[in-house]
Amino acid sequence: MNAAGKRIGSQTLVFPGRPAVQSGASVVGPKEGSGPLGQYFDVVKGDTLLGDRSWERAEVRMLGEAVELAVYKAGLKLQDIQALLCGDLLNQITASSFAARELPFPLVGLYGACSTFVEGMSLGAMMVDGAYATAVVAAASSHHDTAERQFRYPTEFGNQRPPAAQWTVTAAGAVVLGRGEGPHVTFATLGRVVDMGAVDVNDMGSAMAPAAAETIWQHLQDTGRKPSHYDLIATGDLGRLGRKLCMELLRRRGLDVSGNFADCGCLIFDFTPEVHCGGSGCGCSAAAFAGYFLGELAAGRLNRVLLVATGSLHSPGSSQQGESLPGIAHAVAIENPGQEGSSP
Amino acid sequence: MNAAGKRIGSQTLVFPGRPAVQSGASVVGPKEGSGPLGQYFDVVKGDTLLGDRSWERAEVRMLGEAVELAVYKAGLKLQDIQALLCGDLLNQITASSFAARELPFPLVGLYGACSTFVEGMSLGAMMVDGAYATAVVAAASSHHDTAERQFRYPTEFGNQRPPAAQWTVTAAGAVVLGRGEGPHVTFATLGRVVDMGAVDVNDMGSAMAPAAAETIWQHLQDTGRKPSHYDLIATGDLGRLGRKLCMELLRRRGLDVSGNFADCGCLIFDFTPEVHCGGSGCGCSAAAFAGYFLGELAAGRLNRVLLVATGSLHSPGSSQQGESLPGIAHAVAIENPGQEGSSP
Repeated sequence: MNAAGKRIGSQTLVFPGRPAVQSGASVVGPKEGSGPLGQYFDVVKGDTLLGDRSWERAEVRMLGEAVELAVYKAGLKLQDIQALLCGDLLNQITASSFAARELPFPLVGLYGACSTFVEGMSLGAMMVDGAYATAVVAAASSHHDTAERQFRYPTEFGNQRPPAAQWTVTAAGAVVLGRGEGPHVTFATLGRVVDMGAVDVNDMGSAMAPAAAETIWQHLQDTGRKPSHYDLIATGDLGRLGRKLCMELLRRRGLDVSGNFADCGCLIFDFTPEVHCGGSGCGCSAAAFAGYFLGELAAGRLNRVLLVATGSLHSPGSSQQGESLPGIAHAVAIENPGQEGSSP
Repeated sequence: MNAAGKRIGSQTLVFPGRPAVQSGASVVGPKEGSGPLGQYFDVVKGDTLLGDRSWERAEVRMLGEAVELAVYKAGLKLQDIQALLCGDLLNQITASSFAARELPFPLVGLYGACSTFVEGMSLGAMMVDGAYATAVVAAASSHHDTAERQFRYPTEFGNQRPPAAQWTVTAAGAVVLGRGEGPHVTFATLGRVVDMGAVDVNDMGSAMAPAAAETIWQHLQDTGRKPSHYDLIATGDLGRLGRKLCMELLRRRGLDVSGNFADCGCLIFDFTPEVHCGGSGCGCSAAAFAGYFLGELAAGRLNRVLLVATGSLHSPGSSQQGESLPGIAHAVAIENPGQEGSSP
């Protein structure tokens, strides 16, 4: 690898400049705070409205708070940040845009459904690695009640959710990527859109699993790594069904990930009945990474993590028009300095 | 400038590797085809439905066609392209996602409302300049009938539009950015979100003008250039009202752009009564640049263009909740080789 080619294989960007994840911050709702990862989140809100007049405004505030807290934890000022790479699930990503209007740096607005956080980390790592920035923030958010009423039914309606459904998390996560201390982003594998024809909007895990398997496979092909290189391969929000399906799809391609595979959607909640298949939403992988994995990396309990955020790229309108659910997954490798091993 | 710092000022990325706009393609509807720029577009469709069953499906097809045509015109195969940086106005940018599922390369999904095309050009130029890719496509689309029924009223409803309104164009534009021949992308100035409290969704030009003025001012500050450096400073879709307001805001900051300022929304239509203030939509600046400006650059009639695409970052939901219209504008400088002058 040299300055003339910071990519390998067909989809993977290489970051020889070793951009660091300098800090991370997570702000979650009460349900996420009382889940298995609760102790790892920076801020657990007591309610989902934050005393404001709409859930949408609450989401904006949670996202802004996560961004500002990540900057603070990195020992930086807002004026040191050169871009916010951010998205969410709301139509026209208004959570991100409205959070960004309070911030003094440019917004690079992203939409990759629940893959958005890793899309932002990929682009942000590239900006830092390529010396286009010294510090940027990648962030994403979701909110159970804003997502439910936009994609499915208003929560007040109280409809019964089918067993394959997942529970959109109320959470925002943000990381500062820069030239300071922290685990390195070593690779980013950008995902293609994969559509296997799934049409059930209440089973997004199955719709996204083929894209996750494809991106994981491609990442390993491009880098020449084995699954065992990673202490943890963590998908974003496949949930219980999608996680199983992804592992099976990888197994059929000769890849055994059974020893080091996790899904943020399966980690974030106890499997109480209403949660069904697990957590989902942009905020799921963002908060799980910024809140939990990053701390494990700092403590050295994890040294090599492949974070694979997965998105279902449908809209309510596209489903009503009979379209299927295209999936996408982007992956970033985050590794502690000196722990990358001998792989390329 | 050196490898340790490919940015200047607070918001501007520098591309010393001179990524080239290798080709551009534009696919537009009949109304755009019969407008003043009609002769410059590659494909003018005879109707807005393309014989398909929904306008949304027609938009997907126009966008995919623009991407494929741009790749063809660059003398490349789809397999040579390493990413599609793309967005549109539909909820969850389904036009982009559904177009991308037919394409064999990764999707970097973007949302910057009508600033999306330049957001994609900025990121794409960075990918090529930084050697993370040898060829990528930046693209955007909009469709009058899909946008009207999502943001305002179904067109069948036939409501009367107020004088400040603009006409969302039916158009897709795409460019190939790579290491081949063509005018260079020399700078990108990423925009901050600027919200002056405008609330009229039928006057988006006024809502976006402050962001446009801010980004143009910042670009000139960062680069040390004067407005007269450019043969043309072209905003995306401010329309007649927003264009005037932007020029006035710049005048108050001591910048006279009266001699070389244009707005794609003012260029794309004759001012027939129903068009009111001009064109708008992601496809407006995308098709105007790919169809018109790029040809003028190739012919040497333009040598230095600053393209400033502007977006109103609201959603129908945010407006119904009483929120104002945050604006954003991103800018890219596109210059013919050897014609960049002595400015930094």
